[in-house]
Amino acid sequence: MTDPELSEDLSRPLTRRAFFGTVGGVAVGGALAATGVDLVQTSPAGGAAPPDVEAFFGVHQGGIVTAPQRYSYFAAFDVTTAAKGELADLLRHWSAIASRLTQGLTAAPLSGDPERTEPDSGEALGLGAARLTINFGFGPTLFVKDGIDRYGLARHQPYELAELPGFPGDALVESRSGGDLTVHACADDPQVGLHAVRQLARVADGVASIRWSQSGFNETTATSGTPRNIVGFKDGTMNPRSPAELDQFVWVGYEGPRWMTGGTYLVVRRIQIALDQWDAQSLGTQEHTVGRHKISGAPLGRSDEFDALDLEAKDEHGHLAIPVNAHVRLASPEQNWGATILRRSYAYDDGVEVSTAPGAPGQLGGTMDVGLLFACYQRNPLLGFVAIFKKLAERDALRQFTTHTGSAIVAVPPAAAHPDEWVGQRLFAS
Amino acid sequence: MTDPELSEDLSRPLTRRAFFGTVGGVAVGGALAATGVDLVQTSPAGGAAPPDVEAFFGVHQGGIVTAPQRYSYFAAFDVTTAAKGELADLLRHWSAIASRLTQGLTAAPLSGDPERTEPDSGEALGLGAARLTINFGFGPTLFVKDGIDRYGLARHQPYELAELPGFPGDALVESRSGGDLTVHACADDPQVGLHAVRQLARVADGVASIRWSQSGFNETTATSGTPRNIVGFKDGTMNPRSPAELDQFVWVGYEGPRWMTGGTYLVVRRIQIALDQWDAQSLGTQEHTVGRHKISGAPLGRSDEFDALDLEAKDEHGHLAIPVNAHVRLASPEQNWGATILRRSYAYDDGVEVSTAPGAPGQLGGTMDVGLLFACYQRNPLLGFVAIFKKLAERDALRQFTTHTGSAIVAVPPAAAHPDEWVGQRLFAS
Repeated sequence: MTDPELSEDLSRPLTRRAFFGTVGGVAVGGALAATGVDLVQTSPAGGAAPPDVEAFFGVHQGGIVTAPQRYSYFAAFDVTTAAKGELADLLRHWSAIASRLTQGLTAAPLSGDPERTEPDSGEALGLGAARLTINFGFGPTLFVKDGIDRYGLARHQPYELAELPGFPGDALVESRSGGDLTVHACADDPQVGLHAVRQLARVADGVASIRWSQSGFNETTATSGTPRNIVGFKDGTMNPRSPAELDQFVWVGYEGPRWMTGGTYLVVRRIQIALDQWDAQSLGTQEHTVGRHKISGAPLGRSDEFDALDLEAKDEHGHLAIPVNAHVRLASPEQNWGATILRRSYAYDDGVEVSTAPGAPGQLGGTMDVGLLFACYQRNPLLGFVAIFKKLAERDALRQFTTHTGSAIVAVPPAAAHPDEWVGQRLFAS
Repeated sequence: MTDPELSEDLSRPLTRRAFFGTVGGVAVGGALAATGVDLVQTSPAGGAAPPDVEAFFGVHQGGIVTAPQRYSYFAAFDVTTAAKGELADLLRHWSAIASRLTQGLTAAPLSGDPERTEPDSGEALGLGAARLTINFGFGPTLFVKDGIDRYGLARHQPYELAELPGFPGDALVESRSGGDLTVHACADDPQVGLHAVRQLARVADGVASIRWSQSGFNETTATSGTPRNIVGFKDGTMNPRSPAELDQFVWVGYEGPRWMTGGTYLVVRRIQIALDQWDAQSLGTQEHTVGRHKISGAPLGRSDEFDALDLEAKDEHGHLAIPVNAHVRLASPEQNWGATILRRSYAYDDGVEVSTAPGAPGQLGGTMDVGLLFACYQRNPLLGFVAIFKKLAERDALRQFTTHTGSAIVAVPPAAAHPDEWVGQRLFAS
C-alpha cells in the first residue's frame, strides 16, 4: 500500500481545482475524466494515520474491539465456484480492496478512461474512511457442505465452528441465515459501509454470490455513555474490556487450529422485536424483564450502571432483587459457567411487515419489522453464545418479545499481518 | 411548550447524578424510577434554541427546506376509524408529540411510576434533538376513498392532490404505496428518527395503522459539497434555493385552498436501482446516461458542478454534448415548461432480494435491494413531478437501471403557527 500508485483519495472532496492542480490547472472541456491518470494518492505515507482510519493490517481483524461505529453492514455469501484457486484469489482480492477502502481510497485506482469500467462505483468519493472496518468470516459450509469437502479444507475446520443447534422458539428463515463467507463492514457513514460491501460483492462475480445482508445502526454519541438499544435499555454494559479479558474470552489462543490463532468466532442473530407489545408493558415489568433500571442502566435495586450485578441481592420484601427469569441474570457469566461474549449489536429497521392485517379491506401491514442484528464475538461459541442462549431461549423473560429470524456462525481468522498477506491465507497454506 | 411541566430532556444524558440532583442527591435503593416525577424540563425557555433543534412551529413544516439531515424515516398510515373527531384528535396529539420530540424531549413527560406504562419508549434518551424534523401529509384517500367522502373533507381536497397517473415501467407494490396520512421524520441520528415514528405510531393505535415505511440515509458531511447518491453522481444540484424560487415552485400560494397556503405537495417514489448492472457500464456510458461528469458533477463538456446546463452545447464532433436521452436534459426545467421540484431523496438498503437464483441448489439471493427513496416537494405535482417523470419514464437513459416499486403523493399542509395550533387544524376548521 506504499506504492506511489495512481489512485483516488476518498477522504477529500475532488473539486475541480484539486483535480486539475496536478496537471497545471488547465481545464480542457470534456477531458476531465482523462486527467484521472494523473491523480496520486494523497493520504499520508509513513506519517500518522488520519483519525478516521482504522488499521486493516495487524494481529486481529477490525470491527471487533474497535470502538463501535455508527453503522454496520453484514453480508453473507455463497461460494459458487468449485475451484479452490478461484476462492483463494477472491480472498486475496478482498483483502487488497479492504486494505484500500479502510484507508479511504477507492477499491482500486481509477483510470479516468471513459471507455473503461471503473473499478470503484464512486459513491464514497469525498466521504473519507469514516473509521471503516471490514472483517471476513468463514462459515461451516465453506469446509463441508452436504457432506462434501468442497475445497480440501475439511481437515482444517475448527471444532468450535459447528452449525448452531436449534433453540426453542427459533423462526429462522433460510434467506436470512448461513453463508460460506461473511463480510462485516462497520463505519461511521452508512454510505461508506454499503459502498464497501458493494465493491467486494462486485469482484466476487462468478466466484461468490451475495446470499443475505442486514444493515444496522448504533447510537454512539459521545454524551450518552453505553448506547441504548431499541428497547430503550443500555446494551453492552457487561462486555469484556481489558486485554486479559479479551485474551481469555474473545481471541483464539493456544487451542488452535494454528490458522485461527488471534482470530475469533462470530455469531449473528437477526432478532425481530415486538416493540409494540414491549411498549405496552409498565416500566416495572420492563425493568423486571431485563433486570436493570431503564434510565440508569443500574442492576435492579442499585443506582449506577456499573454497580456490580449482585444476583443474590434481596429487595425490601426479601425477594430476589433481580428476578429468576430476568434477562441479565440468565445471561450473566455466573449463571453460565463463566461464559462471556463480546456483544456488538446493531439495530435494524426493515419497514413494515407485509401481511394482511385483520382490519379493514385494503388495510396493510400494521407491524414494524424492527429489532437487533445481534452480533457477538467469542473464543468458543459452544462455551459462549450457545451456552448462554440455550438458557435464554428457554427461560428469559425477554424472549416473549423476540423472534430469531436469521442466524449465522463464522470463524473470523486473524488479520493479515502486512500488505503481502491476505486474510485467510494461513488457512489455505495449512 | 413553556409550561414548567414534568418531563425529560432527551438532549442530555440522564446520569444518576443529574437524576438525583433535583431531589437533594439522596439515592434510595430501587427508588430511582420514582424520582422521575421530580424532573423538570431543562431545555432553554425563551433563550436561543440549541443548535441541534429545528423549529416545529412556524410558516412551513420542517424537513422540506431544512438542510438535509443524515437519516430519513418515511411512514404511511391507513386511517382505521370512521369518526372524524378521532382523526382530528390524533392529528392534534401528533402535533403535540412532534413539537416535543423535535425539541429533544420525550413524547410526553415520563411518570417514573413502575406501575404505569411510560408514554415514551426511551431509546432516544441522551441522543438530543439531532435536528429532528417531522412533517405530516394527507393522501388523496383521506378525502375520498372508494368513492366515499369518509370524513366530510372531500370538498376541501385540492385539485393538485390527485392520485398519480401510471407511468411506463411502473412496478408498484401495494404494500409500499399510498397511505391516508404520512409522517416524514428526518434527523441526524437514525435512532432519533425511528423513535419519533414509533411514538407517533403508538398513539395512533385504534385510529390509524402503519401501512408501509422506508428508512434511508444521506451523505451530508461538510467537506463533500452536494451529496453523491448511490449511483456515484452528485444529486440535487438543480434544487431551487432562493426564497423567490421556493415561493414560485415549492410553497402553495394564492391558488389555495386556503388551508394549504404555505404548504406543499410531496411525491415519494421508492426506486430500486440495478446497481450491479450500472457498475458494469463504462465511465463514459454512465456520464452520457446522466449527462454530467461523474467526479466533478459538471454538465458534460464543462468543468464545474455549478456551470450552467447548456442543452445546446456541442462537442468537438458537432454532436450535442448532453445526449438527447440524458437524465439531466429530460429532467431540466427547459424541457418541461419550467417545471422545478425540490428533490430531497435518501438512499435505502433493504438487504438482498429474496429470490431463487439461477445458480446452484440452495443458492439464494444474489441481488441487493438498494436504491433511492426519491422524494420531491413542489407547489403543483401536475406541473412538477408528473410533468417531469412522464417524459423520464419514456425516454430517460437512466430508466433502464431503475424500477419504481413504491409511490405516494400527499398534501403537506403548512406548519402549526404556535403551540395552540396543530398541523391540519385549518383543514378540519374549513
